[in-house]
Amino acid sequence: MIVLFTDFGPAGPYVGQMKAVLHREAPHSAVVDLVSDAPSHDPMAAAYLLAACVGEFAEGTVFLCVVDPGVGTGRLPLVVEADGRRYVGPDNGLFEPLLRRAATARAWQITWRPERLSASFHGRDLFAPVAARLARGEPPPGPERAPHDLRRMPGAGWPDDLARIIYIDHYGNAVTGLRAAPLGAEAVLEAGGRELRRARHFSELPAGAAFWYENANGLAEVAVARGHAARDLGLALGAEVTVRQRQGRHGKT
Amino acid sequence: MIVLFTDFGPAGPYVGQMKAVLHREAPHSAVVDLVSDAPSHDPMAAAYLLAACVGEFAEGTVFLCVVDPGVGTGRLPLVVEADGRRYVGPDNGLFEPLLRRAATARAWQITWRPERLSASFHGRDLFAPVAARLARGEPPPGPERAPHDLRRMPGAGWPDDLARIIYIDHYGNAVTGLRAAPLGAEAVLEAGGRELRRARHFSELPAGAAFWYENANGLAEVAVARGHAARDLGLALGAEVTVRQRQGRHGKT
Amino acid sequence: MIVLFTDFGPAGPYVGQMKAVLHREAPHSAVVDLVSDAPSHDPMAAAYLLAACVGEFAEGTVFLCVVDPGVGTGRLPLVVEADGRRYVGPDNGLFEPLLRRAATARAWQITWRPERLSASFHGRDLFAPVAARLARGEPPPGPERAPHDLRRMPGAGWPDDLARIIYIDHYGNAVTGLRAAPLGAEAVLEAGGRELRRARHFSELPAGAAFWYENANGLAEVAVARGHAARDLGLALGAEVTVRQRQGRHGKT
Repeated sequence: MIVLFTDFGPAGPYVGQMKAVLHREAPHSAVVDLVSDAPSHDPMAAAYLLAACVGEFAEGTVFLCVVDPGVGTGRLPLVVEADGRRYVGPDNGLFEPLLRRAATARAWQITWRPERLSASFHGRDLFAPVAARLARGEPPPGPERAPHDLRRMPGAGWPDDLARIIYIDHYGNAVTGLRAAPLGAEAVLEAGGRELRRARHFSELPAGAAFWYENANGLAEVAVARGHAARDLGLALGAEVTVRQRQGRHGKT
Repeated sequence: MIVLFTDFGPAGPYVGQMKAVLHREAPHSAVVDLVSDAPSHDPMAAAYLLAACVGEFAEGTVFLCVVDPGVGTGRLPLVVEADGRRYVGPDNGLFEPLLRRAATARAWQITWRPERLSASFHGRDLFAPVAARLARGEPPPGPERAPHDLRRMPGAGWPDDLARIIYIDHYGNAVTGLRAAPLGAEAVLEAGGRELRRARHFSELPAGAAFWYENANGLAEVAVARGHAARDLGLALGAEVTVRQRQGRHGKT
Repeated sequence: MIVLFTDFGPAGPYVGQMKAVLHREAPHSAVVDLVSDAPSHDPMAAAYLLAACVGEFAEGTVFLCVVDPGVGTGRLPLVVEADGRRYVGPDNGLFEPLLRRAATARAWQITWRPERLSASFHGRDLFAPVAARLARGEPPPGPERAPHDLRRMPGAGWPDDLARIIYIDHYGNAVTGLRAAPLGAEAVLEAGGRELRRARHFSELPAGAAFWYENANGLAEVAVARGHAARDLGLALGAEVTVRQRQGRHGKT
């Protein structure tokens, strides 16, 4: 299976043109759209979203990942293998959280080039043909690289979890780049000037109540019961989120 | 064939994650996106839209229907069979118009539970695996229930036809929950403070003229010739619509 | 392969209902969404977009093309074959640039009619069944017509290249109907009151700089480096674009 993760939008020709290439080069592979509205021009936000969404997919799945504002510059094209799944896309940090959290990881630099390589659409011209090759069972077309050499360092602005809004979904819920599990039941998120406590789910709360909860992909997500959190709380993509632990009975909230 | 009817939006990860489950559990079934922008958090509006859109699909089709604001509460998960098509989704009225209009109907309560059941995404964790089972030819995983026990009563706010705007399409046309056939040629719809007469189609009218017509799915739909009805007439999802019959030559319009 | 090119929007039931027909009538054909947000009610803008996007697809591909504001009027339904690819849709100019640029072309009028033909959704009721027939290897269901008889003339408002914005993509880039190759490196585009010079790509320019470049489909596209050109330059669908050649050192810019 080839899974598409892009910032191309759901309606226009770019996804379809990539699918035409995939169908021509790997006609027996199913192709599934995972995300077509990843944060535009923001590989960092996209990277934490991608890492949260891949758990549903079997080993051997090939992810074609194109959030690539640097297309046409010197950034490297990569194949990454992390925990048995493979990823094709640009070396701009998009695979950093995956690599950092993987039990096993390998990487390759793509040195193959197609006959025709446009300046602005490597998704179609370079990454899709490589994804098709992998789906056909062929090896990555280029030399192996040590994953460590491709890593971004926490000190360089790539934390283990990203305390920002990385995705606003169709309901208006605002997904953060923070994994919920380590936060604990007493964690308070500050976002949009509001203090938000953790709830298990919408159904526990009166209409209009703002809260955060662990979403189905394990991320802390800000929501408003029967509301539209992004609009109601003024949260935009990229907005910062602060985590505090609520004090016990001797402290203040 | 498995058909998806959701309020998840067209771009984000939820549809793709459901498709990953369907592909894993029923790899030989085609999957078709029918609607991904059903009215959010509004199973009633969604129910009348769903009932109008299924006629194109063959007997045996499995519909995976997720408009489920009550996910995580006690609402039951259901399989419904109506006129030979099967539907998987929550017991929140989403299947009421289908049941009411069906010549033959059966229902089952889903008592099977997956190993991992998130609090907020039963579409992926519960309903998709059940839809895949049905597509593979397996029976619903739970006891049969009398459809009558699952029915909503007209007195409880579930009319045979819903006199509200239930969908705004990409052209701005405002679809009502009213079947057009019983309304007749002389019916006048009042919507957005305007009186709208019936026309056969756009092409009969000058640019800017507002009217209603029977859309290709049999529903009364409000449109503006070469315009955007929702914007031009101020019609939002949920807006009420009133039906009047035009008087004959002795009466007033 | 059957490729969909429509103005139906990405989320609603129309694309899905067409796919249901295609799956029923041509179950072995892959179906790919190419564009679902072609300019609404604007076959001319859509025509130049379509012509630019088909190069990726193999001979024999069947394009189901529905931008059809005249549905329900007397406009003819057509099958067009241009450079070995086939197109099904309305005779409203949608295939004019394809025909004009094709090395080889044929055309047929569709005279077959389905049992049920709605007034407003020929995409589902007429064009999809015909596309499925072609995909199954059957001939067009109607008499051949001389392509020349179906042509629009340049004098009638159909130029070889369209100097208007024909598409705004998910990044806000504004695509023109002008092929870039004939324009040359020194061409200046005037759009939204700004003079825009040609650049090879985003990466050459500082953030906020407006320019035009040859996009991956060969069209001149207006962009703003790390910005949203449509918003930043006030460019809407249909906006006019003027081409000027920059003067040499003796002239003025």
